[in-house]
Amino acid sequence: MIRVLIVNGPNLNLLGARETDVYGNSTLEDIEALVASSASEQGVEVGFFQSNHEGAIIDAIQEAPGHYDAVVMNPGAFTHYSYALRDAVAAIALPVVEVHLSNIASREAFRSVSVIAPVCVGQISGFGPNSYALGLSAAVLAVGSRS
Amino acid sequence: MIRVLIVNGPNLNLLGARETDVYGNSTLEDIEALVASSASEQGVEVGFFQSNHEGAIIDAIQEAPGHYDAVVMNPGAFTHYSYALRDAVAAIALPVVEVHLSNIASREAFRSVSVIAPVCVGQISGFGPNSYALGLSAAVLAVGSRS
Amino acid sequence: MIRVLIVNGPNLNLLGARETDVYGNSTLEDIEALVASSASEQGVEVGFFQSNHEGAIIDAIQEAPGHYDAVVMNPGAFTHYSYALRDAVAAIALPVVEVHLSNIASREAFRSVSVIAPVCVGQISGFGPNSYALGLSAAVLAVGSRS
Amino acid sequence: MIRVLIVNGPNLNLLGARETDVYGNSTLEDIEALVASSASEQGVEVGFFQSNHEGAIIDAIQEAPGHYDAVVMNPGAFTHYSYALRDAVAAIALPVVEVHLSNIASREAFRSVSVIAPVCVGQISGFGPNSYALGLSAAVLAVGSRS
Amino acid sequence: MIRVLIVNGPNLNLLGARETDVYGNSTLEDIEALVASSASEQGVEVGFFQSNHEGAIIDAIQEAPGHYDAVVMNPGAFTHYSYALRDAVAAIALPVVEVHLSNIASREAFRSVSVIAPVCVGQISGFGPNSYALGLSAAVLAVGSRS
Amino acid sequence: MIRVLIVNGPNLNLLGARETDVYGNSTLEDIEALVASSASEQGVEVGFFQSNHEGAIIDAIQEAPGHYDAVVMNPGAFTHYSYALRDAVAAIALPVVEVHLSNIASREAFRSVSVIAPVCVGQISGFGPNSYALGLSAAVLAVGSRS
Amino acid sequence: MIRVLIVNGPNLNLLGARETDVYGNSTLEDIEALVASSASEQGVEVGFFQSNHEGAIIDAIQEAPGHYDAVVMNPGAFTHYSYALRDAVAAIALPVVEVHLSNIASREAFRSVSVIAPVCVGQISGFGPNSYALGLSAAVLAVGSRS
Amino acid sequence: MIRVLIVNGPNLNLLGARETDVYGNSTLEDIEALVASSASEQGVEVGFFQSNHEGAIIDAIQEAPGHYDAVVMNPGAFTHYSYALRDAVAAIALPVVEVHLSNIASREAFRSVSVIAPVCVGQISGFGPNSYALGLSAAVLAVGSRS
Amino acid sequence: MIRVLIVNGPNLNLLGARETDVYGNSTLEDIEALVASSASEQGVEVGFFQSNHEGAIIDAIQEAPGHYDAVVMNPGAFTHYSYALRDAVAAIALPVVEVHLSNIASREAFRSVSVIAPVCVGQISGFGPNSYALGLSAAVLAVGSRS
Amino acid sequence: MIRVLIVNGPNLNLLGARETDVYGNSTLEDIEALVASSASEQGVEVGFFQSNHEGAIIDAIQEAPGHYDAVVMNPGAFTHYSYALRDAVAAIALPVVEVHLSNIASREAFRSVSVIAPVCVGQISGFGPNSYALGLSAAVLAVGSRS
Amino acid sequence: MIRVLIVNGPNLNLLGARETDVYGNSTLEDIEALVASSASEQGVEVGFFQSNHEGAIIDAIQEAPGHYDAVVMNPGAFTHYSYALRDAVAAIALPVVEVHLSNIASREAFRSVSVIAPVCVGQISGFGPNSYALGLSAAVLAVGSRS
Amino acid sequence: MIRVLIVNGPNLNLLGARETDVYGNSTLEDIEALVASSASEQGVEVGFFQSNHEGAIIDAIQEAPGHYDAVVMNPGAFTHYSYALRDAVAAIALPVVEVHLSNIASREAFRSVSVIAPVCVGQISGFGPNSYALGLSAAVLAVGSRS
Repeated sequence: MIRVLIVNGPNLNLLGARETDVYGNSTLEDIEALVASSASEQGVEVGFFQSNHEGAIIDAIQEAPGHYDAVVMNPGAFTHYSYALRDAVAAIALPVVEVHLSNIASREAFRSVSVIAPVCVGQISGFGPNSYALGLSAAVLAVGSRS
Repeated sequence: MIRVLIVNGPNLNLLGARETDVYGNSTLEDIEALVASSASEQGVEVGFFQSNHEGAIIDAIQEAPGHYDAVVMNPGAFTHYSYALRDAVAAIALPVVEVHLSNIASREAFRSVSVIAPVCVGQISGFGPNSYALGLSAAVLAVGSRS
Repeated sequence: MIRVLIVNGPNLNLLGARETDVYGNSTLEDIEALVASSASEQGVEVGFFQSNHEGAIIDAIQEAPGHYDAVVMNPGAFTHYSYALRDAVAAIALPVVEVHLSNIASREAFRSVSVIAPVCVGQISGFGPNSYALGLSAAVLAVGSRS
Repeated sequence: MIRVLIVNGPNLNLLGARETDVYGNSTLEDIEALVASSASEQGVEVGFFQSNHEGAIIDAIQEAPGHYDAVVMNPGAFTHYSYALRDAVAAIALPVVEVHLSNIASREAFRSVSVIAPVCVGQISGFGPNSYALGLSAAVLAVGSRS
Repeated sequence: MIRVLIVNGPNLNLLGARETDVYGNSTLEDIEALVASSASEQGVEVGFFQSNHEGAIIDAIQEAPGHYDAVVMNPGAFTHYSYALRDAVAAIALPVVEVHLSNIASREAFRSVSVIAPVCVGQISGFGPNSYALGLSAAVLAVGSRS
Repeated sequence: MIRVLIVNGPNLNLLGARETDVYGNSTLEDIEALVASSASEQGVEVGFFQSNHEGAIIDAIQEAPGHYDAVVMNPGAFTHYSYALRDAVAAIALPVVEVHLSNIASREAFRSVSVIAPVCVGQISGFGPNSYALGLSAAVLAVGSRS
Repeated sequence: MIRVLIVNGPNLNLLGARETDVYGNSTLEDIEALVASSASEQGVEVGFFQSNHEGAIIDAIQEAPGHYDAVVMNPGAFTHYSYALRDAVAAIALPVVEVHLSNIASREAFRSVSVIAPVCVGQISGFGPNSYALGLSAAVLAVGSRS
Repeated sequence: MIRVLIVNGPNLNLLGARETDVYGNSTLEDIEALVASSASEQGVEVGFFQSNHEGAIIDAIQEAPGHYDAVVMNPGAFTHYSYALRDAVAAIALPVVEVHLSNIASREAFRSVSVIAPVCVGQISGFGPNSYALGLSAAVLAVGSRS
Repeated sequence: MIRVLIVNGPNLNLLGARETDVYGNSTLEDIEALVASSASEQGVEVGFFQSNHEGAIIDAIQEAPGHYDAVVMNPGAFTHYSYALRDAVAAIALPVVEVHLSNIASREAFRSVSVIAPVCVGQISGFGPNSYALGLSAAVLAVGSRS
Repeated sequence: MIRVLIVNGPNLNLLGARETDVYGNSTLEDIEALVASSASEQGVEVGFFQSNHEGAIIDAIQEAPGHYDAVVMNPGAFTHYSYALRDAVAAIALPVVEVHLSNIASREAFRSVSVIAPVCVGQISGFGPNSYALGLSAAVLAVGSRS
Repeated sequence: MIRVLIVNGPNLNLLGARETDVYGNSTLEDIEALVASSASEQGVEVGFFQSNHEGAIIDAIQEAPGHYDAVVMNPGAFTHYSYALRDAVAAIALPVVEVHLSNIASREAFRSVSVIAPVCVGQISGFGPNSYALGLSAAVLAVGSRS
Repeated sequence: MIRVLIVNGPNLNLLGARETDVYGNSTLEDIEALVASSASEQGVEVGFFQSNHEGAIIDAIQEAPGHYDAVVMNPGAFTHYSYALRDAVAAIALPVVEVHLSNIASREAFRSVSVIAPVCVGQISGFGPNSYALGLSAAVLAVGSRS
């Protein structure tokens, strides 16, 4: 059974309360439930991790191999400057899929650059909570193509 | 029944023959078959269009409303400079999903900027032919959320 | 009798339907009727051409000499990147007036740069359909001052 | 009767004497006579103001409402750096049309950027003294469309 | 008794009438009354000066020493380009506090740079008319710390 | 009674010992005492938080609503790159005032840009420990104007 | 017998009539005759293609393999922005030589950058019609060195 | 007898009092006396003008022809942004020499760019009050070489 | 006896496993053993600290004085953006030597800029594990030259 | 008989030994023999000069007129920064052809800019040793077209 | 007796023959004669040095102290990139005056930046051969003010 | 016995006399003695070369193989622009270590970029004369790891 870790970065714990015009009304729990349901349908095991601490996310990424086969990550604002998180992604052998709720290309200029995407398998952005479900599918496919 | 137009831009007709280290071995026909199969499973109707001519793609985008409910487009190299194609996407009421075979964030610098993405619903890149299948799912979900 | 060709670039065929908050409710037909009426008043003969194809517009510009004495052109999004269209304008001996419906200086940053304007006689932007009528007058005056 | 204020910025009082290869042989008096004649034909009342002092032009712009219905302004070199003049234009309720004698897109790089145009109705450049006459027509039309 | 000169730059005389969504409904007179009242409470003497003329403001700054112990200045749009005003501030021995009604960091890009702030004691922005009252307090404290 | 949280970012715990020519001789304790005294005079309740950990500050900002009515924050060096902290500020409904001891406009170029200021109410910099006292007043006023 | 396709981009059909101070007096027919004569001497077969349509040139490039052994192309203004044409050149296995009539390094800044050259064998510019003859020789040599 | 106008821009009236480590201890009167003495030796007539008002300096420049044969100008901070002053210099037929007390190349970055120098005869900077005396000699030589 | 703290930033705990083509096969333990052995030879006492948490490294740097006489630090990816870490280095009185395993000048563009190096004593990069041994020697020398 | 000087810049004396994947296996002697042979066929006299010293190359260029009718130069790395060499080329009346072994457009970014090309007749790059032979032909043609 | 070394950089030995529209008809010998005559009048001893070799000029600058009291240097194109020459100027205790025949501010963009001027006493440009005579006077004055 | 060449670039012959606040009081002879002593301890043979001539240094680098096993080079100001020196380093098979006396990251902006470092083994900067001794050790280690 394929195991996928879903990682959420800073402030995503506030989803549903925070700037709902940009991020929608779903809470992080709603999204995790959606992903869990989708995973269940696909016969995939999922784990969840969220933190506002860059270091804690790096730790979690480093520990994923052995426990998980792939990672789906919404790095939040770390997307735009955390080269340390980028290095963690590059350092592990698992495929990592970067996802975003909003279309980062249509917001502030600084949000259109991801310093992490170059070392990910790919990126999915703009589909709200569905970005995670699509990301899960993409991660499963990536695991498959590496086998 | 939801109808989705799959649009492919310049040089994508050469897939499978062209730079296979970057784009893989699938031909455009293989990808269209994959998408058709996926569409069929989801009960979605798909149409296909490919051209090396920017104007022809703009014409096709303009004519999509009425015939289709959404568009999945890999604009090829037009991604990086065709503001005319961007305006066509912005001008129609249908949701448009931008897809790429390769991870455009990890290639030449000019490929990391999409002038079209800001007016799309979202963007999916890096998953090879699966980018199209994921894009189809995303398009169907986008149609659903607009209804 | 002075003859003026009115050229419209990509997506301008959608006027009246497309982004009406930016471009207003007039259709291209409305604008052409306005220009025709204004031309008639001034004793000027006008022709109309619209295309979404950069090459077709270049062809039209190249063929204008002999048939027309001046050109009024709204290059649409080609304004911002079509050096080929710029070269066509520079290559013919006729005066070309660049017009825009919206005030391109107050929109996205990329719209404030015209690669074509440096080889035109002048530029008129921001007056909606009246930009064309003013452009027609300007073109007639330019023909006069060259005679 | 529509009233329009014609404002000329620094060094435009030297027209006809100054760099005639760029600006032509018409003096400011010639241009004002041309505009007055054109205004008279259209049944428009015009006033004229010229100054080399940025502050004096800001004062004149601030005082225009109540006395005039629109402004046609050639800001001269202030075009390229006077954010104070920009703020004055933005602060008043009247439509302001920016005009230039020469085609500012085909001269030194610094002249192709107008910091004022984004808050004007529109911009007309390159038609010599006729830029003013076209600007007058545009201003009258702008007043009409706001009524 | 500490004496503070309150200087307002171009277009601030229009406050209350101008772009009230950005600058609020207080007129310059309202603000001056607020500052006068605040000054009175603190036992501080205040003078007021406003001009749309850069040169007049420079003259006022140059003449402040001897008459005033500090300056609170809202340079308006001069904030962004008047190196001459910067030099005047640098040339006098009095502490100068730069204030802004709006949060200049959240507006157009050009407004986020102050060429004057580097030679001021400090900068206060974003608190509407209270920016002046806070600036007055800051100026009084600055005078105290220099004594 | 209005409650305000005073947040200090990395290295501010070293104040008084660190680079005293730039930051002065006051320790963080001195500053907190000054703020507490000022708060007491104004009948305001204050809490204090300092951390060198970006994640801990984000946590604190997220938990402020319900416990506090406003935040005064000196983000230290996070000012210049922590988009995660910016998002935390944007995500909560409380007014946040950014303060700095030194005049950040007159130091190294990187210090003149705040990525957090655009989502704050306003910014106060350059007045040493008094920046906090002024920030407290500004925060109280901001709470008042939102009520 | 080596076969070489000579491709000319937009506006090159106007040669001899257009901007003769920059491009000289030779018409495209003159140049093609020169190349044909030179080819004949070298025992090389040549074909000619010119279009103002980017898509048509891409089509021609894509169809060259099988019919030709090498391509000599003057992309005209497409040189500076057609990433689609670049991708077509990169996609085919034939050597492509980029040629220009004028010395593109000594003209407008935008002309000194070729987005196509990085995927060509090499570039020849500045020798008028001889650039084509030299390009033909270079193409023949390139075919030889690949064999 | 050659007549030369010596123009000084904003804040130069404070010389001797202002930032003496940068500008030295000479007052403007000292400098004018030095120039007058030097002029007297050379049999040259000099006039002096200083203003903090950009418009007043432009007026003075415009009025120089007829009264003077050349201009020596220290534009002060206007050096770095007054395109209006640049246009005034370009508009008159007299040779203008730009002078600076300090070496503008060794100070803040913004001071190393002169927007006026390109239309002057030449520039002299870094020699303190002697820059004016050298500028006077240069102006006299320039008048001679134009005769 | 001189005491030196060896600090390693994010992802350096993965050395030997991670991207061995760039970073080599030595583990962090191997490197620490190498440094310990080199320290022992020089009669220097060393301590080791590694963390993926920026805040934890700042804490460690702040606590070094009193326990250590110098610091040798490989900040990992924090090198490129952690102004907070820079401020910590600048805040303490100990000499800090920045070291890197790889030659950061020959990798991605973002890696060639260190925001921390300007406040360090010096930088050593490119010598693999030997960078640490060289850094230890440099730190010891720096302590000596400060005594 | 036309005489052509072949100039090679720094490090080209190492050809055949140096980075053969980029520059090929031909030594400079091989190339000179190829050029001599080609010259002989064309009835052209050639001279050769190579130096690692910028000044020596400038001297050689300055001395070419009178001894040679044209120059073919591979400036090596001087291509990218030697404005002194550019001025030497501009100063002599002979046509100079710039050649490169490799395709400089497809290497490091700094190699795609030639500061010398703007004052040459033209540029040929990417054809290995054949670049010299083509350059010789181009030089001979340039001499012919100047006669 | 004050001794001044006059240094001329690359290609200045061609003066009078080279680009006379830019540099005039005077040869270097003419200029040296002019300077010698001017020096003689002022009772100043002058030496002359010209080289196309950067290293030779650095050697000459290094050897000037002891033999000369000041240097007047026209670095030619080295002005724009020779940081080595800059360091030589900064390393010696003599005042160095940078001179240029042409007005470098009105030519190609690269010529408006001097990397050497920041470490010179001052700069004089635009007065043809008189730039040297003025530079000599400036150098003599600089020696005087240092005594 | 390992043989190492120590190369010093322009102006380093002035060490001890030149800008001692930046470079310290050691002369080049002192440094060479220090290196010789350190080499002697390590059983390494060293040679020394210094020149102000870029070409001479390139010659020396080219000739090093066969005579030396490694190079330690302080390129002085050539560090920042000599691509020719970079190519020489890249062309030889020996390991080259770049060293600097001062911390180039904390000085003028242009000094923080080395165009040579990307092709060196590594870089050591900021430790005064010890940078050379450390560089010698690094070079010896590099020779060892290549054997």
